Amino acid sequence: MSTRSKFDNKLVHLKEKLLEMEGLAEQAIKNSLSALVNQDSEKANLVIHSDSQINALEHEIHDKALLLITRESPVARDLRSINVALKVSSEIERMGDMAVNIAKAAIHIGNEMHIKEIVELQKMMDTALEMLSMSIKAYISEDILLAQKCAEKDDEVDKMFGYLVHELIGLVPENPNATNQIIQLSFVCRFIERIADHSTNISENVIYLVTGKRYELNT
Amino acid sequence: MSTRSKFDNKLVHLKEKLLEMEGLAEQAIKNSLSALVNQDSEKANLVIHSDSQINALEHEIHDKALLLITRESPVARDLRSINVALKVSSEIERMGDMAVNIAKAAIHIGNEMHIKEIVELQKMMDTALEMLSMSIKAYISEDILLAQKCAEKDDEVDKMFGYLVHELIGLVPENPNATNQIIQLSFVCRFIERIADHSTNISENVIYLVTGKRYELNT
Repeated sequence: MSTRSKFDNKLVHLKEKLLEMEGLAEQAIKNSLSALVNQDSEKANLVIHSDSQINALEHEIHDKALLLITRESPVARDLRSINVALKVSSEIERMGDMAVNIAKAAIHIGNEMHIKEIVELQKMMDTALEMLSMSIKAYISEDILLAQKCAEKDDEVDKMFGYLVHELIGLVPENPNATNQIIQLSFVCRFIERIADHSTNISENVIYLVTGKRYELNT
Repeated sequence: MSTRSKFDNKLVHLKEKLLEMEGLAEQAIKNSLSALVNQDSEKANLVIHSDSQINALEHEIHDKALLLITRESPVARDLRSINVALKVSSEIERMGDMAVNIAKAAIHIGNEMHIKEIVELQKMMDTALEMLSMSIKAYISEDILLAQKCAEKDDEVDKMFGYLVHELIGLVPENPNATNQIIQLSFVCRFIERIADHSTNISENVIYLVTGKRYELNT
């Protein structure tokens, strides 16, 4: 096999590992919100304990990527590809952490009756997950237009965040005994907003990968 | 110069860049809390705008580290040193983001009269900053005992976080009009707790650097 195809093969392998990691993180995120909505502490604990798998994959990708650099001494575009793979894996790992945080909030709320249906939170999460899916597609197909479209969606999530936290605060006077729940739900809003931010960061990396230039889309 | 000393020189240069970055992040963190305590929106805006400097340094360190790998093809301990430098720079960059978040919270609260003196928040921040300083010292001197001591302090911050958020929630019934401020201050508690987590992550990386084994100290 030529050196070129050997390098490409190893890069494909790295991307496969990234997709595996992304699959786990996406599932953890979905499970964490489902644990919150259905007050399912068993599922929440599962999310918390499964995070070590995502962390281990990040370490594996990191180690493999650096070994690939030492063995092939890539330059320019090839080096950038590995650089970006490292960055994308870090962003996915942080999303896994957000799933853990949401699961912990679910446990903090426990079986306390929800003061309102968690419909908007689910909607916000759906948009964040859509962004995650867009950013990963953009990364795999190196599609900078899709990356830009993903980053534009971040404004929607930011607006939902502002609106929801404002609404939650408004519920406090009538529900003075539910302040713990309200603070926990505000934290969850924040965690979802962070998931969207991480997808925006992946999108920025796609643009860097393709153009070699760094843009901050998340301002 | 021998290849060995060339490599070591470049590693020292990387570490100097990391220290420069850490200095900026530490200053940003201190400024962000001072902006909150003194309701100084000008200072808060300065923190927000200066973050791009920290981000740029992270990119520079990342690029230099990967170039160093392509040029010197280091193995074993040397490769691990660069791997850890990359990780440490990411952790510091995230701490800069936390400073921005605290600065934004300060702006959200604006000139609204504080419902309580921000003494405990400052205490919590002092512990987080002490952890940052310990973790960086541990990294530079490759001192795993200091790294462990730093990670142990994380429990203190976690406890302060739990206590403070609980106290803030307790203030809500008597201050129904200050819920926005209370939520913002709860977020700030969370950001400080994250700063401590990032220092724990740096400590984990110090232990990995020295022993070659990965431990999760932050559980």
